[in-house]
Amino acid sequence: MEKAILGAPFVCQIAMIVRDAQKAASRFAELLNVPVPQVVTANADGSDTVTYMGRPTEGRVKLAFFHLDNVVVEFIEPTEDPTTWKDFLAEKGPGVHHIAFKAKNRMLETAAELERFGYPLIQHGDKYAYLESTEELGVILELLDID
Amino acid sequence: MEKAILGAPFVCQIAMIVRDAQKAASRFAELLNVPVPQVVTANADGSDTVTYMGRPTEGRVKLAFFHLDNVVVEFIEPTEDPTTWKDFLAEKGPGVHHIAFKAKNRMLETAAELERFGYPLIQHGDKYAYLESTEELGVILELLDID
Repeated sequence: MEKAILGAPFVCQIAMIVRDAQKAASRFAELLNVPVPQVVTANADGSDTVTYMGRPTEGRVKLAFFHLDNVVVEFIEPTEDPTTWKDFLAEKGPGVHHIAFKAKNRMLETAAELERFGYPLIQHGDKYAYLESTEELGVILELLDID
Repeated sequence: MEKAILGAPFVCQIAMIVRDAQKAASRFAELLNVPVPQVVTANADGSDTVTYMGRPTEGRVKLAFFHLDNVVVEFIEPTEDPTTWKDFLAEKGPGVHHIAFKAKNRMLETAAELERFGYPLIQHGDKYAYLESTEELGVILELLDID
């Protein structure tokens, strides 16, 4: 069988943009009766090389993760750094930003395939890449360079 | 342990509103290298009792389902019937409408709990209910009366 561009048919993360990640985490934890996860600031140390719309950005962001039985649910609170997260919130308000697929060791190559497929690469860091597929699929696709 | 309002920590569906379910299904199938699922019209026979914002509606909708390894991905194309799907598309354009949790035999009771929690019931049929949690969680929660 020909290899699928998105690899295994497995959505590893669903990520929501919210105004307040701490509040979202606290409320979602209550609904699931699980501990409230810590809200962390990604790229606080600037070690990740982030590019948004072709330009470098610090790309810091506040995140809270829930490891559910079948999928990771992520809440994203943008910072003032220029990012797809900040623009999404400004343009659409709170909403689901992306669903993620694993692309270990083939993230940029898969991103290039998706660009040829018609979905532009809008932002990427060392371990993630976002492809703009919203007009057709209703959601941004994320590729993760993880197992 | 106290029972979680949302039951098991398991997201059974992720649902995207799109302009063209056939096109979305065809493109997503290509990305996954799987057969294109049939687009079906839900409630074409009018057998489901659908209520949107307190008023009855036929609530027909075009749907395409992908049964991935860990979750069902659903593409939703609204019809002209008054529904949350139609209003979502008109207001926000294509985007993720909801994530779903199973609530077999306790759907309306769980919906009432979520209303007390602060998330209004905006639409329901015989087997599904939508709670408006977007402002806090970035997504509508769906309860499904299925196993």
